[in-house]
Order: sequence, then C-alpha cells, then structure tokens
Amino acid sequence: MTIGASELKQQIASTQQHINTLLANTIDNLVALPTPLRDAMRHGVLLGGKRVRPFLVYAVGEALNVPKSALDKAAMAVECIHAYSLIHDDLPAMDDDELRRGQPTVHIAYDEATAILAGDALQSLAFELISEPHPHMQAQQQLALVQCLAKAAGYGGMCGGQAMDIAATGKAIDLDTLMTLHKLKTGALIECAVEMAVIMANVNADTQAQFRKYSANIGLAFQVHDDILDIIGDTEQLGKPQGSDLKSDKSTYPQLLGLDQAQQTAQKLVEQALTSVRDLPYNCDILEAFAMYIIERKQ
Amino acid sequence: MTIGASELKQQIASTQQHINTLLANTIDNLVALPTPLRDAMRHGVLLGGKRVRPFLVYAVGEALNVPKSALDKAAMAVECIHAYSLIHDDLPAMDDDELRRGQPTVHIAYDEATAILAGDALQSLAFELISEPHPHMQAQQQLALVQCLAKAAGYGGMCGGQAMDIAATGKAIDLDTLMTLHKLKTGALIECAVEMAVIMANVNADTQAQFRKYSANIGLAFQVHDDILDIIGDTEQLGKPQGSDLKSDKSTYPQLLGLDQAQQTAQKLVEQALTSVRDLPYNCDILEAFAMYIIERKQ
Repeated sequence: MTIGASELKQQIASTQQHINTLLANTIDNLVALPTPLRDAMRHGVLLGGKRVRPFLVYAVGEALNVPKSALDKAAMAVECIHAYSLIHDDLPAMDDDELRRGQPTVHIAYDEATAILAGDALQSLAFELISEPHPHMQAQQQLALVQCLAKAAGYGGMCGGQAMDIAATGKAIDLDTLMTLHKLKTGALIECAVEMAVIMANVNADTQAQFRKYSANIGLAFQVHDDILDIIGDTEQLGKPQGSDLKSDKSTYPQLLGLDQAQQTAQKLVEQALTSVRDLPYNCDILEAFAMYIIERKQ
Repeated sequence: MTIGASELKQQIASTQQHINTLLANTIDNLVALPTPLRDAMRHGVLLGGKRVRPFLVYAVGEALNVPKSALDKAAMAVECIHAYSLIHDDLPAMDDDELRRGQPTVHIAYDEATAILAGDALQSLAFELISEPHPHMQAQQQLALVQCLAKAAGYGGMCGGQAMDIAATGKAIDLDTLMTLHKLKTGALIECAVEMAVIMANVNADTQAQFRKYSANIGLAFQVHDDILDIIGDTEQLGKPQGSDLKSDKSTYPQLLGLDQAQQTAQKLVEQALTSVRDLPYNCDILEAFAMYIIERKQ
C-alpha cells in the first residue's frame, strides 16, 4: 500500500512532536548551573526544523521491526549533532546568520561564547545519550552507534564537509568536488541516521547494503533539491532569504548543471533510492514516500 | 620505593613523546581533503603541553596492570577533548588569546572558522578513537569509556565549567562557586582520565572509590596551584603573561583565600590524594610522586 503525501506529512509531524518532547525533557533534566548554557542549548535544539534525521531513524527502525523505545536515544543523538552544527555554522566567523527559521540564532539570542559552548555541549550530549546503559540494547550495538555517529560528525564527515564548503566559497569548483562536499557536509549525518537504525536491527549484509544505497541517494537528493529551492523557493517558506547561496557565492548544483539538469539529477537520485528498498522483505512504504517527498517539498 | 622528581620528569617526558607520536600519526592518517582543517587539528593537538591527562591514564592503568596498548586510545581521546577545549577557549569570543605555549593559537595560525571546526572535529575524533573495535577490550568497557568521557566533556563537566567561568568573569563569586567551577572546568576531565584507566582494569568498588578521591583531589590541587603560579610564576615559564587572571578579572583561590591559605589548601588536597592511594594493594609510587609534583611545578 502506497503512503500518500498527507499521511507522510502527518507522520513527519508526529515524529517532530515526539523528538521535540524528548529533547526538551533531556535538556530540562540537566543539572542547573549559574550560566545561560542550558537555555542556549535548549534554544538551539528546539529551533524547529524538519527533523529529517530522527524521522529516518524511526522510519528505518520501524520498517526493520526495532522497538521505538530503542530508537529514541539514537534519534536524539543524531539531532543533537545536527543542531550543534547549525549553531556553529550560524556564528559570525562562519555563515554569520542572525535568523534561522525566523528565530534569532543562538549567538544572537545569547552571545558568541555561549553559542560555541552550547554547540560543544550538544555534541558531547549526543555521545552521552547513546552510551547510557540501555535495557533493550547490547553494548556491542551501542558501541557501533557511537562509532557510526563519531565518524559521520567528524573530520571524515560533517566537519570536513563544512570545512570544504568554507574553502570552496568564492571559488569555482567542479561537480565531483561539490558532490564530495555535500556527501560529507549533509550526506554523512543522513546516512548515519539510517545506519544507526540498521545497526539496531541486526539485519543481513545485503539489507545493510541496500539501506546504505537508499541513504546515500536521498542524502544527495536532499542537497540538490535544497539548492533548487534556493532559486525557486520564496523567503517565507524557506526561513532564509531566497538566493542566499548565490549571494554568498557558493557553488550549487543548478549553477553547475543548470536548473533543468539539477532537477533531473535529483529525480534520478530519488529513483535509485526507491529501487534500493523496493524489493526488500520489509515494508518500506514510508521510506519510499519520504524519498519522493524530498524532491517535492517546498522548504 | 619512592620515585624522585627527576625520575618522574623522565616518565612525564616519555609519555609526552609517546602521546605526541600517537596523536600525530592519527591526524596524519586522516583522509586528505581540500581544506586546511587537518593541519589545523594537528596544530591544535600538537601545541605541546604537559599531557597531564594522558599521563594519568597510563600511570593509573599501569599501576592497575592494564596493558599499555589498551590505554592508548583512551589517552589520545582525553587529550583530543582537552586540545579542542583549548582551541575554542582561545577564540576571540572566549579568552581571545593569540599565543599558547609561545606559539600562535589555531585561529591565529589559520582562521576562526577553521579553529571552530578543528575543535569540533577533535571532539568527534575522541569518541571515534574509543569506540573503534579493539582486540583487548570488551564492548561493555569501551561503552563505559564513551559514557565517562561524554559526561566529563559536556554540560555537566568541562563545557558547563567553562560557561560558569565566563559567567563569573568580572563578578565576585564565593569559594564554593569557584570550587564547583573548577571541578567542572578542569577537574572533570582529570577525573575522567583516571576513571578511564580504572574502567579498563576491572577493579573492585573500594579501589574505584579510592582512585576517584585521588583524582578529585589532584584535579582541584592542580587548579589552585595554577592560580598560585599566575601570581608567583614568570611569563617565560608559564607561556602566558603572568597575572593574566588578575587582568581578565577572574576570581582565583589566592584572591579569595590569600596566597598563604591558597598554598595550604593545595598542600592539603595533595595530602588527601596521597592518603587515598597509599594503602591500596597496587604500586602507586608514580601517582604519589605526581600528586606532589602538581604543587611543586613551576609551570
């Protein structure tokens, strides 16, 4: 049975609500200290957002019959890493953004030092969450989650991609470099969200490989479509000024390929993602619907 | 057999050399990317320093008969966290330091964005190192290392302490607050270094408790003596201008207690540290010598 756009939207909204509650409770349970750090972490982690990474953890986990309670920590952890990266990316020394999703960024709502520390502490919190003793998980699995998240977040993943993005700003780069950049900067963490759910499911190597193909393709499609939205979207829906990539002189897929070709590339990536999960002996309807949503979304 | 000052110095120097080689090799083995990020991480992690935390990992681990090869990852990880914290502390939005140990800080040698990312990536690297499959360690132990390091590094440890430090700058704070601040800012990671070695040793609860007392006492003594050195040391030995704490209007132990009383406090803390390990059925000579060194060092 195919899942329609409205059912998917409902499931995404339900995940958003669930993860927001979990994250808010986790932050609120941190011990009180005479500093605004906890509030700044809360602000940064609850700035809204699509919660794509937690959604993938739950969607893949549920397709593979992992109990939802065993997925919560991984979903929170991957979102803490994503949230910290946004806090640091928004800093004056990086993208210098004062607004994110229509709200003041952390260094505007607090100050730069607090924003740096809030990001740092959210990264630690991610690893704290997935290494806490858990009744439904084996140490071996949890350790694999840590390894997966650390690799995806670090030099060989998100941080390296962000550094490549900075190095590429204002320069002409080729398509291969742009793809590597995005595979690291945004793809690594999206792939990690899927991989963490797979780790908890103890599935065979072939299934693992199919899910890796799925996540690699949707990760890249996500970025290509983001670049397209930056040209054709409008500011109100994006939460950032339209054309901001052009203004900051960053290379984008539409710039390198032309808009039509970029749209075809995104389409092809999504088709590859669909192919990789279509014949698995699991109900992946929600993952198929999500892959299609990636290139249909308006924000 | 008591260990003399020169033998201790030799052991500290030997640990420095060992850990510097391990860290340099680890960074050099990271995949090459078209960004200065790897060089910046290398610069930050190899700026020198006493390597107190790795020294404690090895000294406690060896006292408890843990093979050295099983200690390497933990020693590197705790130093990666320490190094990242220094990179971020040195940023203009934080302490705004251009020199550390006589060398340009990371944001001076590179730029602010790269320094932020180098710190972020070193934190991830720390967790990557201790979660890598290891032939001499059980998953359960490795997971406990991750949990220990994440707690020590995060909001309830180092990051929280640094935020308290910022909040306290320019304000009068009482001795209890200063002690909490330092217990988090520097104590947590020192305690974690000792705890990680203890985790790998599988010792009984009483021994664990004695090592916790040891590390809590030396952690605090370390900071009290640092504050004392800031008053009585000279710039060349400290690598930073003498009296820099006074200039930046931070509360210190000598300021709150007077110099004499601060020195007595440090002395008392070291005596408590010595008491806690003296009667254990392990050879803790090196740890006793190290506790005494903490309040005798000139830098």
